[in-house]
Amino acid sequence: MSFTQSYRRADGRAQDEMRPVRITRNFTSNPAGSVLVEFGETRVMCTASVEERVPRFKKDSGEGWLTAEYAMLPAASNERMPRESVKGKLKGRTQEISRLIGRSLRAAVDLSELGENTIQIDCDVLQADGGTRTASITGAYVALADAIKELKTRGVVPGNPLKEPVAAVSVGLIEGHVCLDLPYEEDSRAEVDMNVVMNSEGQFVEIQGTGEEGTFTREQLGLFLTVAEKGCRELVEAQRAALAED
Amino acid sequence: MSFTQSYRRADGRAQDEMRPVRITRNFTSNPAGSVLVEFGETRVMCTASVEERVPRFKKDSGEGWLTAEYAMLPAASNERMPRESVKGKLKGRTQEISRLIGRSLRAAVDLSELGENTIQIDCDVLQADGGTRTASITGAYVALADAIKELKTRGVVPGNPLKEPVAAVSVGLIEGHVCLDLPYEEDSRAEVDMNVVMNSEGQFVEIQGTGEEGTFTREQLGLFLTVAEKGCRELVEAQRAALAED
Amino acid sequence: MSFTQSYRRADGRAQDEMRPVRITRNFTSNPAGSVLVEFGETRVMCTASVEERVPRFKKDSGEGWLTAEYAMLPAASNERMPRESVKGKLKGRTQEISRLIGRSLRAAVDLSELGENTIQIDCDVLQADGGTRTASITGAYVALADAIKELKTRGVVPGNPLKEPVAAVSVGLIEGHVCLDLPYEEDSRAEVDMNVVMNSEGQFVEIQGTGEEGTFTREQLGLFLTVAEKGCRELVEAQRAALAED
Amino acid sequence: MSFTQSYRRADGRAQDEMRPVRITRNFTSNPAGSVLVEFGETRVMCTASVEERVPRFKKDSGEGWLTAEYAMLPAASNERMPRESVKGKLKGRTQEISRLIGRSLRAAVDLSELGENTIQIDCDVLQADGGTRTASITGAYVALADAIKELKTRGVVPGNPLKEPVAAVSVGLIEGHVCLDLPYEEDSRAEVDMNVVMNSEGQFVEIQGTGEEGTFTREQLGLFLTVAEKGCRELVEAQRAALAED
Amino acid sequence: MSFTQSYRRADGRAQDEMRPVRITRNFTSNPAGSVLVEFGETRVMCTASVEERVPRFKKDSGEGWLTAEYAMLPAASNERMPRESVKGKLKGRTQEISRLIGRSLRAAVDLSELGENTIQIDCDVLQADGGTRTASITGAYVALADAIKELKTRGVVPGNPLKEPVAAVSVGLIEGHVCLDLPYEEDSRAEVDMNVVMNSEGQFVEIQGTGEEGTFTREQLGLFLTVAEKGCRELVEAQRAALAED
Amino acid sequence: MSFTQSYRRADGRAQDEMRPVRITRNFTSNPAGSVLVEFGETRVMCTASVEERVPRFKKDSGEGWLTAEYAMLPAASNERMPRESVKGKLKGRTQEISRLIGRSLRAAVDLSELGENTIQIDCDVLQADGGTRTASITGAYVALADAIKELKTRGVVPGNPLKEPVAAVSVGLIEGHVCLDLPYEEDSRAEVDMNVVMNSEGQFVEIQGTGEEGTFTREQLGLFLTVAEKGCRELVEAQRAALAED
Repeated sequence: MSFTQSYRRADGRAQDEMRPVRITRNFTSNPAGSVLVEFGETRVMCTASVEERVPRFKKDSGEGWLTAEYAMLPAASNERMPRESVKGKLKGRTQEISRLIGRSLRAAVDLSELGENTIQIDCDVLQADGGTRTASITGAYVALADAIKELKTRGVVPGNPLKEPVAAVSVGLIEGHVCLDLPYEEDSRAEVDMNVVMNSEGQFVEIQGTGEEGTFTREQLGLFLTVAEKGCRELVEAQRAALAED
Repeated sequence: MSFTQSYRRADGRAQDEMRPVRITRNFTSNPAGSVLVEFGETRVMCTASVEERVPRFKKDSGEGWLTAEYAMLPAASNERMPRESVKGKLKGRTQEISRLIGRSLRAAVDLSELGENTIQIDCDVLQADGGTRTASITGAYVALADAIKELKTRGVVPGNPLKEPVAAVSVGLIEGHVCLDLPYEEDSRAEVDMNVVMNSEGQFVEIQGTGEEGTFTREQLGLFLTVAEKGCRELVEAQRAALAED
Repeated sequence: MSFTQSYRRADGRAQDEMRPVRITRNFTSNPAGSVLVEFGETRVMCTASVEERVPRFKKDSGEGWLTAEYAMLPAASNERMPRESVKGKLKGRTQEISRLIGRSLRAAVDLSELGENTIQIDCDVLQADGGTRTASITGAYVALADAIKELKTRGVVPGNPLKEPVAAVSVGLIEGHVCLDLPYEEDSRAEVDMNVVMNSEGQFVEIQGTGEEGTFTREQLGLFLTVAEKGCRELVEAQRAALAED
Repeated sequence: MSFTQSYRRADGRAQDEMRPVRITRNFTSNPAGSVLVEFGETRVMCTASVEERVPRFKKDSGEGWLTAEYAMLPAASNERMPRESVKGKLKGRTQEISRLIGRSLRAAVDLSELGENTIQIDCDVLQADGGTRTASITGAYVALADAIKELKTRGVVPGNPLKEPVAAVSVGLIEGHVCLDLPYEEDSRAEVDMNVVMNSEGQFVEIQGTGEEGTFTREQLGLFLTVAEKGCRELVEAQRAALAED
Repeated sequence: MSFTQSYRRADGRAQDEMRPVRITRNFTSNPAGSVLVEFGETRVMCTASVEERVPRFKKDSGEGWLTAEYAMLPAASNERMPRESVKGKLKGRTQEISRLIGRSLRAAVDLSELGENTIQIDCDVLQADGGTRTASITGAYVALADAIKELKTRGVVPGNPLKEPVAAVSVGLIEGHVCLDLPYEEDSRAEVDMNVVMNSEGQFVEIQGTGEEGTFTREQLGLFLTVAEKGCRELVEAQRAALAED
Repeated sequence: MSFTQSYRRADGRAQDEMRPVRITRNFTSNPAGSVLVEFGETRVMCTASVEERVPRFKKDSGEGWLTAEYAMLPAASNERMPRESVKGKLKGRTQEISRLIGRSLRAAVDLSELGENTIQIDCDVLQADGGTRTASITGAYVALADAIKELKTRGVVPGNPLKEPVAAVSVGLIEGHVCLDLPYEEDSRAEVDMNVVMNSEGQFVEIQGTGEEGTFTREQLGLFLTVAEKGCRELVEAQRAALAED
């Protein structure tokens, strides 16, 4: 196997090409940070809210905390899904993604510089077309940056808690070909599916690769990561461009 | 008491003046109908999804059904609210509004013309500034119209189930003055709060008036309804204008 | 349409005639106030219990609070209904009625005269034949009065928190005729159903009217309210008579 | 230790004396059987409802089923207790008593004669003063008898499923003295607490004895059972007297 | 009926013969006490964990508390049972047994000598073949003893809270014959089933006897207790032998 | 950084050395497969139960299904954890691990050869000392093999659904050093933590690496995988040795 760019994707993209990425700041006005992030047809509203207190396990630590919750609106995907609030319990998938977003964003913040404040990230998927968790992480970083700026303006945060950007992208194996940023159509038939979270220095924050419909070799993994690095580099640029508009 | 238009509202509106209303169709692409409705700073995503089956109590009745669910995104309002899905139970307020939306929209559809199909209305508040339930009803009618059109195109619905428009608006008593379409700032200090759902022929579908911080007389009620009628007329025009754009 | 008293109701009553109303105080002995209220075959046990503390949002306010819960015993209605405690969640209808009772009774109490005490109203329907929520409100006022009397006797309440009586009644449109105080047989086929909560001065505390199987005009609304006022006046007399027996 | 009748109970009863027992049939009109049972100040509404189907594990067995649910109204006892429906879960005590009532009543019915019907017993405590579970069993038998009579009248039940009466009573050790039918004041300080369910032939259906604040000897157990037998005999007479009134 | 030892049990035991009993201390290393108890093929892991605080109702009482939880692993019994954690609610049977274990073990500890500490007993059934609750109580006493020893070593407990051993055994009526320590095969077809909890002085802590498939006489009860006493005596010996190994 | 074996681990192991691994088959007798797996002090009971039916989404597919549930006994870890069944909800961590085990084991079974049967894997942690999820996957494969053997013996499975072994191991970065198979003491302070699931052919089934307390480079990832491959190879040998004992 090699990465020959020979595969013709259904939407015409090159194998290592991202879908169009749009990051809209100040999407809503109540939360400290509010971003609409779009990876093609996937649209996620990412907000960062601030509470001037910390959970019990951080009390009197002098440090802050960051936590995240992910959810899909019931009509976001192709077929309407029942609301988790109506069923009274969270699906495993929801909790798993919420935890991933939380860990990823904590890598972008220096909790010891945050003071005893909590940042609550909410990622609500308005429209789903694959890659909702990676779009969430990418958009949430921008909402986080805006929230921290507001905290600093209000004089609540003494230090400089924001670290370099963190972004995330999916890669997968489609009919034996490594492809970047999978839409639903590809995601649902991928032999291998991998999500990669990186910082702007090209280091890994998290990688999760799964081959339910197959397995993957170390060589393939190398290609996945090369392609993911390209995607994350471009996403960091988009984050920076969005944050530069003021 | 009389209705003298003498009261100066914080946002400069006349007492019987609506906030700017915007109705955006095809806000998202997956559900059969998808509308973003805005009453000033209040923004609600209203979708109508279709299932080609009915709940048990309608089975073999030859009729369809319509049901609705309302929710607020956690960061929609001034202070972040915990997710009901995480708490594992719905608040009474949520259920009450969901039921109101369902009853109101069922007044806009002839279930016997719908065939054994179910229309699921979802109203998710992206940004809350008062009047979320009335905006939901008003927007949901447009989403419903689009969903029924799609059903007819697909040949699933034999008859013509869509009735005349249904719209809703709030009125309240602020410092003794009757005011139309209350934003949060007024709503939170209203002596009387009333929600009125009307159809395009000026008939009432539902009225709910409550005076927790006071009571109201029959004369005041008359003024509330006169003002609400004006609001609903304007909303029906906005619905028709939105549906005329094709 | 006019209000001609021409309609023959199944149970022989005139259109604006209440069912027999009975209010029995001291129905049980543990709660501070305990009332059995009967509107015809509808029977509700209404209790008022007192706690010498307030919920968090009233702490250090110097004010008290009142809250209410409504429930139906499983065998109260025609067909046995599953227990909400066994299902583990409250139905929307239950929460909606609990909230209505709470709002209505708060209109009968001056929270600033109550001290930092909480009154908990419980309305448990022993037998249901329509009008359970209006009977609940009417009976709960009497239980509330007894509870406040006990509080004053115990010296817990400094002021005089009890306001004038609040009572509630249903009206509806049956085969096009306005009828007062609907039993289940009428309620289940009413074209319009309205619940009206009034105080003894003839002011509205709450009105809720819904026309799921139809709509209603402003003229009809006027008739509904006229008939409801008559009902509420009679209910206030019954409340006063019950409270006079000592 | 011996049973000398020497102990002076707070309410003046002899050690082996029941509180006044009242059984009121047709307490409410909707369920097939509806009984108010009173053991002194303890008052329980016991109903028996019928469904013409059986749970899955009895399907096509030709047999019926009986199940029971017990609950206390929130204001039944001295201090108001939170509703289990609001908390969203049943307490262990509630489930334990529901199961005990179910087992005890199944001993009073020949399921093979019932046809594929289910009898649902509901015991709701209106006022609690000790012995609510034993009053529930005793009253529920009478409700069961009425329900079976109705089933036979309707021709649903071919055979004769009702067996001889089953009744229940509590006994306990108070300051070292065996006492029958404990009110709350005794129950809360009993060294040993025992509930005995018997049929009219003097056989045991169930015995549960617990000595959390102590232990008991075989000799004491003998006294408990002698006293319980006397109580159950009297309860069966009360059941028969109630059922004889027609 | 008499106790003639004439009945031939499926596993060859005499009617009053226990299955082989094994008690293994230090089964796991994290909890203060950890015991694997086996009654034949029934295997339960019993642990005693210590918290240096008490629940609210014991605060500032100077006394400690003991509570217990029982559960079956999903694959413990013949047919896999769904997890209660996945279903989100506890079965009545689970709560009933947890409560029984808690009451029984509290009879083995002097709470006033425990200081303000809580002992949490956990009984998790690894393999079920009848008698899981009686094995749990028997094994939990040994775990409790080890936990208290550790507490004393750590200097947390001033007094001597451990009382004499408490053990439990089942007896039942199989084809009319009294049998001790029923395995699942007998338990599932027993006419009468009784669980007896005794202390080492031969006093009863708790007895629970139920005759769902029949009833039992006082004479039979006498035989049950005689046989149960023999079983409990042997269990106490096994507990003492296990605790003597150090 | 390089992999020099120079780091001295607290338990004396080499950096790429597994803890002692023990796999005990037939640990309990009821489930089709029952294995106790031990990685050092971590002990997990893994069972495989069989149901001769499939979930709805597999009905009439001719294929089978495999699903998994993971849980920790409350006293498994250092500090007792509350039961999820008592709290009424699953933690995100529990669901995440259950899903990981399910995906990993599905890679070891050819569902199309399984017939319409479901295999339910249960992994219950008796004692936790790090690596519970990797031990679970490794042990569950052996339980799966035993369950499939039983299915074939019973003639339920026509084909040969068992694929080559799947095993899992953790690697992490401790004080900058790559270490294999982390016990709790290392896991709790690891800068990077990775779980690797491989099959016997050295292909990846799943990799999950997270650097909450840091990030990792591509070079470090290479070392992680090299060490993990060694661990998985040894685990597959242990699985084969266990399965060879018959």
